[in-house]
Amino acid sequence: MNDKDNQPIVGLDIPAEIGMPLEQVQTPALLIDLDVFEKNVAVLKERLQAAGVRLRAHAKTHKSVDIARYQLEHGGACGICCQKVAEAEIMVDGGIGDVLVSNQVVDAGKIDRLARLARDARILVCVDDAGNVDALSAAALRHGVQLECLVEIDCGAGRCGVLPGDAALELARRIDAARGLKFAGLQAYQGAAQHIREFAARRAAIESAIAQTHATVKMLAATGLECGIVAGAGTGSYGFEAASGLYNEMQCGSYVFMDADYQRVLDADGAPLGEFGNALFIWTSIMSAARPGHAVCDAGLKVMSLDSGLPVIHARDDIEYVNCSDEHGVIADPLNSLQLNDKLKLVPGHCDPTCNLHDWYVGIRDDRVDCLWPVSARGKSL
Amino acid sequence: MNDKDNQPIVGLDIPAEIGMPLEQVQTPALLIDLDVFEKNVAVLKERLQAAGVRLRAHAKTHKSVDIARYQLEHGGACGICCQKVAEAEIMVDGGIGDVLVSNQVVDAGKIDRLARLARDARILVCVDDAGNVDALSAAALRHGVQLECLVEIDCGAGRCGVLPGDAALELARRIDAARGLKFAGLQAYQGAAQHIREFAARRAAIESAIAQTHATVKMLAATGLECGIVAGAGTGSYGFEAASGLYNEMQCGSYVFMDADYQRVLDADGAPLGEFGNALFIWTSIMSAARPGHAVCDAGLKVMSLDSGLPVIHARDDIEYVNCSDEHGVIADPLNSLQLNDKLKLVPGHCDPTCNLHDWYVGIRDDRVDCLWPVSARGKSL
Repeated sequence: MNDKDNQPIVGLDIPAEIGMPLEQVQTPALLIDLDVFEKNVAVLKERLQAAGVRLRAHAKTHKSVDIARYQLEHGGACGICCQKVAEAEIMVDGGIGDVLVSNQVVDAGKIDRLARLARDARILVCVDDAGNVDALSAAALRHGVQLECLVEIDCGAGRCGVLPGDAALELARRIDAARGLKFAGLQAYQGAAQHIREFAARRAAIESAIAQTHATVKMLAATGLECGIVAGAGTGSYGFEAASGLYNEMQCGSYVFMDADYQRVLDADGAPLGEFGNALFIWTSIMSAARPGHAVCDAGLKVMSLDSGLPVIHARDDIEYVNCSDEHGVIADPLNSLQLNDKLKLVPGHCDPTCNLHDWYVGIRDDRVDCLWPVSARGKSL
Repeated sequence: MNDKDNQPIVGLDIPAEIGMPLEQVQTPALLIDLDVFEKNVAVLKERLQAAGVRLRAHAKTHKSVDIARYQLEHGGACGICCQKVAEAEIMVDGGIGDVLVSNQVVDAGKIDRLARLARDARILVCVDDAGNVDALSAAALRHGVQLECLVEIDCGAGRCGVLPGDAALELARRIDAARGLKFAGLQAYQGAAQHIREFAARRAAIESAIAQTHATVKMLAATGLECGIVAGAGTGSYGFEAASGLYNEMQCGSYVFMDADYQRVLDADGAPLGEFGNALFIWTSIMSAARPGHAVCDAGLKVMSLDSGLPVIHARDDIEYVNCSDEHGVIADPLNSLQLNDKLKLVPGHCDPTCNLHDWYVGIRDDRVDCLWPVSARGKSL
C-alpha cells in the first residue's frame, strides 16, 4: 500500500484499475463475470422464494463484504453465514446485521469476541457440546447480549455435530435453560452430499438427512422446543431441502461463482446442474512458449486451490492445463497456438479456497473493469 | 488493523503476542520452531561452504523479509531468488540487495517494474525467448540500469526454458549483444527431480540435468561466453549439484522449514533425508469432539495446501488427520483421547503454498512466542 493515501498500487498490490480493458488487467488475477454473477444471484433468489424458504448466503465462499451486501440487497438473503469469528467481525464491521457462525466456537477468547459482536448485530452460532453451552451463556451475560444457538446434528457428513435424536434434545434443553442464550433451531448441513456427482445418489443422501432431521424436529416439538430455524443445504443439494417442507434456511455459497468441480455435479437428466453459470475465473498469461507442444502460464498453486483437481481452461477445447506447480501451469498445446502474453481464463477446481488466496476481485462487464472488490476476510481464520 | 496505531489486533489479524505461552496462541496459526529453523539454516550453510558453492536461497518458500535477512546474515546466502516481480519489490524494499527473479518476466508492465527495481539492487532474471531479450534491453536502457540475464534451459523439468545446446547458445549471444543486459550464465533447475522419492532415481534425473548443462556450458565457453553463474538445485537434490564441479549457485528454499512431502524423499540408505528437521507447523485446536472415534480440528484447506497430500500430526502416532474441508480437519481418534480445545501441531504436506495462506509466522522458542514475522510477500503474485 502507498503510505501517503493508503491506495493499493497497481502491479504490486492490485491487478487492475476501474475502467481498464480486460486485456490490460495484470495476471494472475481473480475475475468475476458480473453478468453471470448477477444472474446466479437472481436465479437462486427466485427459486427459493418460489419454494417459500429463506436464503442465508454463505460468505465463506467469497469473504467479501461487497458481495454479502449484494446478496442481502438483491439476492433475497435474510442474513449470511460465516465459518470463523474473524470473518463475522469483518462482515459486521462492513454493516451486515445478521450473521450465523455456522460452526462451533469453543475457545475462550473467540467466545468472548463472538459475544461482543452481538452488541452490534444479530449473532447465531452452532453448538454440539454441553460445556460450550455454559461458556457461551457466561459470555452472553458478561456482555449483556443474546446469542441464538442452533444445535448442530450430524446427518451424514461425518464432521461436527451430535447425533440426531436424544443427544440433540439434551443439548437443546440445556440451551433453552441457559441465560443469555436462545434456542433457535437445528443446523443440519449434509456437506458430504454436495459434490456427489450422480443425481439419485445425491438425492438419497439428502433424503436420509431430511428424515433424521425431521425425526429430531418432531422429538423437540413434543417437549415444547420449537425449531424456528432448520438450516442447511448448499449449492449441490438445495433443491431437495427447499422442497422438504422442513428446512427453512438455505446456506448456499458457491452458487454465486460456481467452479469446475460443481460443474461435474449432475442433474436428474444426467447433464451438469444448469441453473448457475461460471462467474469466477483466474486470468492468466502465457509466460513461456519456448518449445513446441506446450506453453507455461503464470497461474499455479499460489493463486488457486488444487484440492478438487486442476483448473479447466474456459472456452478452449484445443488446449489443456495439465500440470501445476507453485507459480506455473503447464498447458498442453498440440497445435502450438499459444504465444507469449496470450491471456486465458481458468475455471478453478474449487472456488472457496481459491478466493481465499486473493486480495481483490476484478469485476468485469463488457470486457472492462467495472468494479474492484476487496476479499475483505481473506485469510481471516481466527 | 487498528486504525490508530496500525498495530494488528490479536484474534482478528494476528494469532499471538510476543512472550505469550504457546498454549495461548490462537488457532489456526503458522508456527516456526526457531531452534530447528536455525539449525536447518546452519546445516545448509556448512554443507555448501564445504562444497565451495554459493547459496542463493529461494524466498518463494517463506516470502518473508525477516527470513531472507536471516539467510543473508547467518545462512551464508549471497542473495535470494524470487518467482514474481512483486515478491522482488517487497524484498528490495525490505533491504535485500541481490535478487534473482528465477522466472520469466514477459509482460510489458512487469518488465518496466523489474528494470526500475535495478536502480536499488542487483537484479537478475531468467529468459527463454529472444523477443523478451529485446524488451528487457529496452527497459534497462530506459531506466539507466543493467539487468543480468540467465538463459533458462529445460534439463528435464518440462516447464520453462529453451533446450540445452544450440537454442541456449543463440539466446546467450543475443543477451551478450544487447545493451543494458549482461549475460550472467545458465538457470538449469530440475524441479521435477526434487521430490522423486527413491535416491537412485533422483540421482539419475539430476545426473542427466548436469550432463546437459555441462555440454551447454562448454559450447558457450567455446564461443567466448563464460557462464559466471550456473544455477539450480533445491532441497531434494542440492547434494548432487553441489558436488558436480559445474553448478555454483544453489537455490534451495524448503530446507528452512521442510514439510511432510519432503520427509518422504529418501537418502541413499533408504531413510528420509536426515539433515533438515520440521520447523514449520500448523497450530490447531480441537473444536468438536461430539461423537466417539473422531474429533474435528480448526485447520482445513484455507490454512494449508493439499496439493502434496494431507498433513501429518506431529509426535502423535495414536491419531491421524484423515479428511480435510475448507475450515475443518477430521481426525481419527480410536482411543477417544482428544477433548475440546486440545492443541495439535500439524506438519503441512507442502510448505510453500501453505505459507502463502498466512499473514504471520509465530516464532516459538521454549514454548513461548519469541518473534512475530509478517509473511511480507504473502499473496504477491503479480
